[in-house]
Amino acid sequence: MRFGDCDPSGIAYFPSYLNILNGVVEEFWQRLGFPWTEMIRNRRIGTPTVHLKADFVRPSIFGDTLSFALTATKLGRSSLSLSHGVSAGEEPRWSADQVLVATDLETHSACAWPGDIRAALERFMETK
Amino acid sequence: MRFGDCDPSGIAYFPSYLNILNGVVEEFWQRLGFPWTEMIRNRRIGTPTVHLKADFVRPSIFGDTLSFALTATKLGRSSLSLSHGVSAGEEPRWSADQVLVATDLETHSACAWPGDIRAALERFMETK
Amino acid sequence: MRFGDCDPSGIAYFPSYLNILNGVVEEFWQRLGFPWTEMIRNRRIGTPTVHLKADFVRPSIFGDTLSFALTATKLGRSSLSLSHGVSAGEEPRWSADQVLVATDLETHSACAWPGDIRAALERFMETK
Amino acid sequence: MRFGDCDPSGIAYFPSYLNILNGVVEEFWQRLGFPWTEMIRNRRIGTPTVHLKADFVRPSIFGDTLSFALTATKLGRSSLSLSHGVSAGEEPRWSADQVLVATDLETHSACAWPGDIRAALERFMETK
Repeated sequence: MRFGDCDPSGIAYFPSYLNILNGVVEEFWQRLGFPWTEMIRNRRIGTPTVHLKADFVRPSIFGDTLSFALTATKLGRSSLSLSHGVSAGEEPRWSADQVLVATDLETHSACAWPGDIRAALERFMETK
Repeated sequence: MRFGDCDPSGIAYFPSYLNILNGVVEEFWQRLGFPWTEMIRNRRIGTPTVHLKADFVRPSIFGDTLSFALTATKLGRSSLSLSHGVSAGEEPRWSADQVLVATDLETHSACAWPGDIRAALERFMETK
Repeated sequence: MRFGDCDPSGIAYFPSYLNILNGVVEEFWQRLGFPWTEMIRNRRIGTPTVHLKADFVRPSIFGDTLSFALTATKLGRSSLSLSHGVSAGEEPRWSADQVLVATDLETHSACAWPGDIRAALERFMETK
Repeated sequence: MRFGDCDPSGIAYFPSYLNILNGVVEEFWQRLGFPWTEMIRNRRIGTPTVHLKADFVRPSIFGDTLSFALTATKLGRSSLSLSHGVSAGEEPRWSADQVLVATDLETHSACAWPGDIRAALERFMETK
């Protein structure tokens, strides 16, 4: 947790936590072979978050190193459920469930996952 | 929604939403008569968020004006449950349930709400 | 200065200062009659910052109320120089000089200010 | 440049640039052997930025990978001047000059660099 992610009480500022989480999800898409840059610019598909539930079990302080474990728990026609476990060493700090929805960036309405993206997500869920 | 709160797909970035929400909660405490500045600096009590559940129903775009309605739904020994409804005019955009916990900033463990703060929260819940 | 704008040492985090400054400039354009929403979406003109010089004279702490005074100091073919004075009551806290450049959002290269925008900027510089 | 660091016009949001720069400076102190966590918590010394001058030569877009080169250019009794060059591959994107001042976090006034920190900064300036 960097200086700029912590607040005057000395602990992690939770909106900064979610900014970091979003970076983790961004990296997940990149490793899957579908970086947001390409999805947003070329395919005009976004993956906005429609649901988020987070439990902050223990505070993190400035200087802590956190690791994020991402699991894909459910794949719908146009939705994807992710589960996140965040810990410092062995100690759980917070966890989150998140639902993303494939969205047509012209109309801002949900669209089915394109076949190649769906196939990659299914492969990820099997091997994980 | 300001320029800096929106993302390259042109809609509100959800971590920025939560940064704004935190400002609303900060203002709630100020109006209640217990500004965080005073609570954190003099009483050494923080009110970190331990639980958050948010549903993003419709996207907001750069330039939208949103209004936030805050309700206190439950007061525990050291916790406070808040419910937030966020809309643009008559249109609901997103909602959130949040649980805060009174925390001793020296030990980072939960503490009972001090009597005067509890009384003010009870008054707020009755008149709202 | 909100909780989320301050850092673990208890003072304003300077990148947050610049996020707030950007909101002030956004409001300047709105009052001028050319909101960024309209400029970016319809005219496809952006006004990115190409130069910034800031002097942070005295720290601001969590809870301070700051006022921003914006002056337009120079209007070029495609540039605009702004000068900002930021204070808490009578006390100067920081100041900044900023240069914006009118930019075609398709080519990301500088373009001359359109006539109506130039005229509005000239009016602002005269009456201020 | 991550999704959350870019704006609705599709390019890097300059306050986010400075948030990233601050992380680079944080890492510089860590590598020097004086992490901010230790300096702020144990020694009660901060290194706030008192001056910043930045020139944004070319825009960066969402997905770009930037590298930051940090040089220490001048060491005063209580100040430190840094120069930053930021590029994408061989292409310069922006540069900045920054002045930090060693500050006593109790009094918020400048203090001389402690001997061990000064010695480490001098070593860094010689070998770089």
